[in-house]
Amino acid sequence: MDKQKDFSEWYHTVLEEAKILDQRYSIKGMLVYRKWGLFILKQMQEYLEKLLEENSHEPVLFPVLIPDNVLGKESEHIAGFEEQVFWVTHAGKTPLERKLALRPTSETSIYDMFSLWIRSHTDLPLKVHQSCAVYRYETKHTRPLIRGREFLWNEGHTAFATNEEAEKNLKEIKVIYGKLINELLCLPFQINKRPDWDKFPGAVYTLAFETFMPDGKVLQVGTAHNLGQNFSKVFNITYEDEEGGHKHVYQTSYGPGFGRLLAAVISIHGDDKGLVLPPQIAPTQVVIIPILFKKSEKEAILDYAEEIKTKLQKEGIRVEIDASEERPGAKYYKWELLGVPLRIEIGPRDLKEGKLTLVRRDTGKKETTDVEKLDVNAIFTKIEQNLRETAQKNFDKNIVEVKNLQEFNKNIGSKIVITGWCGEDRCAPKIESKGTILALTDERGKCVVCGAEGRKIRIGKTY
Amino acid sequence: MDKQKDFSEWYHTVLEEAKILDQRYSIKGMLVYRKWGLFILKQMQEYLEKLLEENSHEPVLFPVLIPDNVLGKESEHIAGFEEQVFWVTHAGKTPLERKLALRPTSETSIYDMFSLWIRSHTDLPLKVHQSCAVYRYETKHTRPLIRGREFLWNEGHTAFATNEEAEKNLKEIKVIYGKLINELLCLPFQINKRPDWDKFPGAVYTLAFETFMPDGKVLQVGTAHNLGQNFSKVFNITYEDEEGGHKHVYQTSYGPGFGRLLAAVISIHGDDKGLVLPPQIAPTQVVIIPILFKKSEKEAILDYAEEIKTKLQKEGIRVEIDASEERPGAKYYKWELLGVPLRIEIGPRDLKEGKLTLVRRDTGKKETTDVEKLDVNAIFTKIEQNLRETAQKNFDKNIVEVKNLQEFNKNIGSKIVITGWCGEDRCAPKIESKGTILALTDERGKCVVCGAEGRKIRIGKTY
Repeated sequence: MDKQKDFSEWYHTVLEEAKILDQRYSIKGMLVYRKWGLFILKQMQEYLEKLLEENSHEPVLFPVLIPDNVLGKESEHIAGFEEQVFWVTHAGKTPLERKLALRPTSETSIYDMFSLWIRSHTDLPLKVHQSCAVYRYETKHTRPLIRGREFLWNEGHTAFATNEEAEKNLKEIKVIYGKLINELLCLPFQINKRPDWDKFPGAVYTLAFETFMPDGKVLQVGTAHNLGQNFSKVFNITYEDEEGGHKHVYQTSYGPGFGRLLAAVISIHGDDKGLVLPPQIAPTQVVIIPILFKKSEKEAILDYAEEIKTKLQKEGIRVEIDASEERPGAKYYKWELLGVPLRIEIGPRDLKEGKLTLVRRDTGKKETTDVEKLDVNAIFTKIEQNLRETAQKNFDKNIVEVKNLQEFNKNIGSKIVITGWCGEDRCAPKIESKGTILALTDERGKCVVCGAEGRKIRIGKTY
Repeated sequence: MDKQKDFSEWYHTVLEEAKILDQRYSIKGMLVYRKWGLFILKQMQEYLEKLLEENSHEPVLFPVLIPDNVLGKESEHIAGFEEQVFWVTHAGKTPLERKLALRPTSETSIYDMFSLWIRSHTDLPLKVHQSCAVYRYETKHTRPLIRGREFLWNEGHTAFATNEEAEKNLKEIKVIYGKLINELLCLPFQINKRPDWDKFPGAVYTLAFETFMPDGKVLQVGTAHNLGQNFSKVFNITYEDEEGGHKHVYQTSYGPGFGRLLAAVISIHGDDKGLVLPPQIAPTQVVIIPILFKKSEKEAILDYAEEIKTKLQKEGIRVEIDASEERPGAKYYKWELLGVPLRIEIGPRDLKEGKLTLVRRDTGKKETTDVEKLDVNAIFTKIEQNLRETAQKNFDKNIVEVKNLQEFNKNIGSKIVITGWCGEDRCAPKIESKGTILALTDERGKCVVCGAEGRKIRIGKTY
């Protein structure tokens, strides 16, 4: 597998061989998640849910179906989603009185209930989250985990008395999502405030969390929106303030896509041997491989391996012994493909000398340690640091600021480009035909097309 | 709240006040799960998933949609479900080429993949499970958690080389589901082999796991099916045996409904004060209530409470201190409603004497203990035993064997009735108009209508 040469083929091979998922389901754009992929997705979900609940979000779970009149209440929202909605129209052979949408996102169904749950200022702030699947009929080319018609995410929804509180909440979400992306998954990212024409339908503004893929494309892995009072006005979500007045709440909503984050983990950390998993999310964190050449040594080596396994399990580490009949080389190949962060080899000499041979998946480096000195958690920390730093360096290398169209054209498509734009329509085609404007910043910058004063933009090729 | 007097009102009040769920969603038969309910459902799910994975089931997650041609492959199966299927017919305004069903159960979609996954006898046995929601358009009166149009469950699916292995698997599932129902949830149950006319569509036979509700009705909380080769023949799931021959696999499938299990926990263990939760599934297992009358004692009592909390948390117990401004009585009322298994009261005298006052939710009994002797896990074991025994006694009391029609008519509707039936159509109406035949056993018994030799049946009123 050559990741550099043919990234797309590499990606599909890893997905299949590491049992992340099966793409052969009978509906295009819908996936069957398998053991290895599901475990990683679950780790992300649990990590995020814990952070959100520590931040006073209450877990909820809403139905997958939303009636057309509820989904359609906020006009910009429905206009933005209506082409992508899967509609349930029949139950058995009977036409339904109302069409029911498979949720493309849950603002409308959740806010319909918020209007029942919120009465008084004492009910505020209200913050809820749910982990679920959402459904969008994508007409563009689908790609497993990156663009699909059913995707797994967590969505947060809030209501506050003031816009200031809503803004503070979005700051906290930046920190929480930052932890998920960078601390847990060791991925670099930037936050881009979308131009007005590209914001979430119904939002005041949208922030996008973005990382960068080996094929030169920008991958949006999450978004967060300030919804202002747009939804609270149509759903009539009001509270009685301390003076007895009735006011509409201010709202935010946000969600990271677990599938896209998984795609980023696979693509950014992986190498020609397969997956390279950050230790915290690896289904198996350590694999112990007994090197069994002589039958006479077998029992003693397996006992030693069991001892190490027990010791590590007590430390809360997910560890397996591969005592199968395969040759050591075949075992290395298999566990490397699966991205297991640390391999411990135990041969006859290790046993005799009370030592262990350690091989890190990220660097491939081999070292020997005394069994008493084994500190797997310390090694995990080093692996995480290395993954994070390597990915960050590559990310930073792929952001360039350009001053003229020639440089712009040279870099766009393979990098995230920072440049200027005057904001005029006449200059837009030369810019937008090449990539998507990720952010229209408040910084000043000279237009890359006409040279007039304008604003700095970040632009890149997206999926 | 009077559970005896008006069970239905009591049930709805508890669901709402304990924040189990909200029934006011805009689609009939679909629920919004809230914090307390979700936590309990998750505990069940994790407990079951662990048992299944220890029993070599691999976790999977399949799409919610199934194309009509896949759902329709097994003729009995589709005949059994077609009236209940929610159909997606449009994406945006565009009609889909194929109708897509919201899965009513996943045999068909999973077995379509099994035919790709299984090639050789070395791929067998194959056992997978998934926790998900399924969708059935119920036309009968819906009841929250008991009969809905979206319900949460776990479904297991298997493939074996022989029917013997499939039978062995069903025996293991009886044990696993038994643990979930009786060990974790402290609920009594019986297993009924359904009459042929009431088996799962496409199955050879169906086993139902059933408990008994306070309103005299039988509640099916899970099923397990021997599917024989019915599905493997239509989905062409074959394996190459050691001699190179191609054979169809033998299959089973099974699932408990988490919502129905929650309904049973609430209804069977609950009392006039509200929920009574088995400790293992309680979101909060212990609540500490500081009795704060004098300001001068407040700090010392709160410190003492924190000390106890820390000690219990170290033992892995989910514990909260209620230091709010409410009066103790109001706090007792609140935490009793929520079913928290153990309350610890700490007053000035307890503090002075190094003691604690313990109140069990299940018995209401109050006792004092030295703080050094506090053993919450031992108390939890006693609570579980008491819940299990009390529920079992009540269950046993509600199973009666009757010899004549008068007794039959007296008991049917409020009890599970064991009696005989000759198997003839002419006697069926007098039996089946009163209840549902839960099991047609292999034991001999005289027909309750005509007195002729027949088989013993178990019959009851169901939801």
